[in-house]
Amino acid sequence: MNRRLRNIHSALKQRRLDALLVCWPANISYLTESQSRDSYLLVCRKEDIYFTDSRYSEEAKIFLKGNAKLKECNGSVFKHIAQTVLGFKLKKVGIEERYLPTAEFARIKEYAGGKFDLIPTHGIIEDKRQVKDNRELAKLKEAARITALALEYIKQFLVPGVKEVEVVAELERFIRYQGARASAFDIIVASGPNSSRPHHLSGERKLKDNEPVLIDLGVDYQGYKSDLTRVFFLGKMNVLVRKVYDIVLKAQELAIRRIHPGAEMAGIDRVARAYIAKKGYAKNFTHNLGHGFGLEVHEDPRISGNEASALKPGMTFTVEPGIYLPGRFGIRIEDMVLVTRKGCEVISGSINK
Amino acid sequence: MNRRLRNIHSALKQRRLDALLVCWPANISYLTESQSRDSYLLVCRKEDIYFTDSRYSEEAKIFLKGNAKLKECNGSVFKHIAQTVLGFKLKKVGIEERYLPTAEFARIKEYAGGKFDLIPTHGIIEDKRQVKDNRELAKLKEAARITALALEYIKQFLVPGVKEVEVVAELERFIRYQGARASAFDIIVASGPNSSRPHHLSGERKLKDNEPVLIDLGVDYQGYKSDLTRVFFLGKMNVLVRKVYDIVLKAQELAIRRIHPGAEMAGIDRVARAYIAKKGYAKNFTHNLGHGFGLEVHEDPRISGNEASALKPGMTFTVEPGIYLPGRFGIRIEDMVLVTRKGCEVISGSINK
Repeated sequence: MNRRLRNIHSALKQRRLDALLVCWPANISYLTESQSRDSYLLVCRKEDIYFTDSRYSEEAKIFLKGNAKLKECNGSVFKHIAQTVLGFKLKKVGIEERYLPTAEFARIKEYAGGKFDLIPTHGIIEDKRQVKDNRELAKLKEAARITALALEYIKQFLVPGVKEVEVVAELERFIRYQGARASAFDIIVASGPNSSRPHHLSGERKLKDNEPVLIDLGVDYQGYKSDLTRVFFLGKMNVLVRKVYDIVLKAQELAIRRIHPGAEMAGIDRVARAYIAKKGYAKNFTHNLGHGFGLEVHEDPRISGNEASALKPGMTFTVEPGIYLPGRFGIRIEDMVLVTRKGCEVISGSINK
Repeated sequence: MNRRLRNIHSALKQRRLDALLVCWPANISYLTESQSRDSYLLVCRKEDIYFTDSRYSEEAKIFLKGNAKLKECNGSVFKHIAQTVLGFKLKKVGIEERYLPTAEFARIKEYAGGKFDLIPTHGIIEDKRQVKDNRELAKLKEAARITALALEYIKQFLVPGVKEVEVVAELERFIRYQGARASAFDIIVASGPNSSRPHHLSGERKLKDNEPVLIDLGVDYQGYKSDLTRVFFLGKMNVLVRKVYDIVLKAQELAIRRIHPGAEMAGIDRVARAYIAKKGYAKNFTHNLGHGFGLEVHEDPRISGNEASALKPGMTFTVEPGIYLPGRFGIRIEDMVLVTRKGCEVISGSINK
C-alpha cells in the first residue's frame, strides 16, 4: 500500500468510517498513481479493491501493482461493490457526495438491503491532493515548461487574418510534439472584444491589427495539468489597453509577493483586488484570483476573498487577476505558483509578460 | 417554446410530473438548441427557467431567445431552483438520476423543506434525442465529412518512426482548419500490438513497417459528434492480418445490409457477431456492435445483442465490429449510419475501407 492510500486509511479511521467508495477519476488516479478510467475504488480497512471491467483490466493489472486488489466486474458494478462490503461485514461506507450520481447511490443502497449505511462525505482525498509531492511537482513543472514554450512558439501565427480556432489548431499540434498527452481544457484564443469574456469559446473570428489576443492554455503531461494565460498584441497597443495591462500586471506582482507558508488565502486575493479597485476597476475583476491545479486543472485550494485557510508548502495554484470591459477587451495574466518553504516559486516563469 | 421543449412537456404530463430539473449539459444543449455550459434547466408546466451565473448570462441571453426565461444566480443555484419550484407551488419535480450528484439532490431536498418531492427519472430527453431532425443531420453529416477528410489527409504521416501522439497532433490541427471545434474524444492512434486494446491511449510508440495502425477519430462540429475508425497498413499486410480484416469487413457489410426501419437492434448486432463466431473469433469481438451518436459521441441507442427495440427513421449509430488478438493486433472498422425511411445511409461512406 502506498503512502497516499495510508493517509486516506488514517483519515477514515478518524471519521469512524469502515471504507470510502471513490468514484471520481482524479481521486482514483491519485490513490493508484495511474491514469484510471471507468473504475471504482473501495478504500477499506480490510483490503483496498479496484473495480473495473474487462476493457481496462489488462492495463489495471500493470499499474495497480500491490496497491489494491483488482476485481473485474461482469454485470452491475454496484452489485459487486455491495457484495464486497457485505462480505467484509462493514457497516459505515463513505461515498463522494459531490460526484456519485443519485441513481448509483440508490442502486448500492438497494443491494445493501439495510445491512450497511452510505455516509455522504466530501473533500477527504481532495484535501490531501492540495499539497504536491516531488514526483507530482516534477510533472507539473514539465507541464508548465511545455505550456510556456507553446506560447513562445505561437507568436509567429498571431497575424491579421488568422482565425482563433486556427491558433488553437497550431497549439494543439505543437504541445503533442513536446510530449504533452493533450490540452488540459478547451484552449481559449480570444481576439479583440472576445477577450472581454473570461470563458470565451474559440471560434471563427479572425485576428485583426491593433487588437489584443488573449490565450489561455493548459496541457496534460502524464495526467498533470497546467494553466497559463498571456495577452499578445498585434500592431499597436492603444493607451487604455496599455493602462489596463499595467494594472493587471501590478496586481499580480503584489499578490505573488504575498505568497508564503502560513499566509491566509483570502489575503492574497484581497491584495490584488484592492489594487484593481483603487485604480477604478473593482467591478471588472469578476472572478477569484486563482485556483489549485494538479490532476485537475481546477482543484482545491480556491484563492478567493472568503477562503480563510493558510497556505502550506507544496501547494500549487494559479494567480490570475483580470479586468474585463464588456464588448471592448479583457486582460488576464495568469501564472502558476508553488508555495515553497520560504516563499513561492513561479513555475511558469520562463515566459515574458 | 420550440418543438423539442413541447415534446418534453407532453412527456412530463404523461408521467404526471409538474417539472423536470435538467442538469446534463447535452440534454440542456438539445432543448435550448445551444452549447450550454454550467447551467440547470427547469422544464416546468408554468414556465421554463434556465439557471446560470454571471459568467454565462451574456451568451445565454443570445441563444435562449424565447425558449426559456434566464435566471442569473448569485449564491446557491440549488436555493434558486427550490425557490422557483416553491413559488410555482409545484409538487412533483423529476430529476435526472443518472447525472444529478447525491449532494445536489440532498441540497435541493433540504431547500424543499418537504413541500415538494424529487422524483428520480431517466431517459426522458435521451429517448427523444435518438431520432435526429434535419438540422441535426446536416451537422452530423458535416462532422462525418470532416472526419473522413482527416483520415485521407493523415495517410502521408503514417510512416515508420512517427509517434502515435504525433499522428494525433496532426489530426487535431487538421480538423480545426476544416471547421471542427475540437475532437469529439481522445483520438485513438494504436500501432502494432497496441491496436489489440479497443480503448488504447495514444502514446510515444513509433509506427513500424509491416504493422497495422488503427485510427479512431471523431470531431465536434457545432456541438455534434462523429465517430469513425479505419485501419491503415505500413508496408506489407501479413496473411493473418488480411484474413482478420476481411472477416471484420464482411461482418460490417452483413450488419449494414440488415438496417431498416422496424429491424430489431439485437438482430443487427447478432448478424455481425454470428459471422465472426463462424470464422472462429467469437471471443475476440469484445464489445457491442455500435452506439448512437449526436450531441454525445456515445448515446442511445445501444446496438447490442440484448436490445430488443426497433430501429426508427432518423436514428444515427455506429456499426463497428472488431476482432482483437491480445498482444498481437486488432482490427475494427467503424462507420456512421443513418436509418432512412427505406433502409440506411452510410454517412461516413466517402472513405475507402
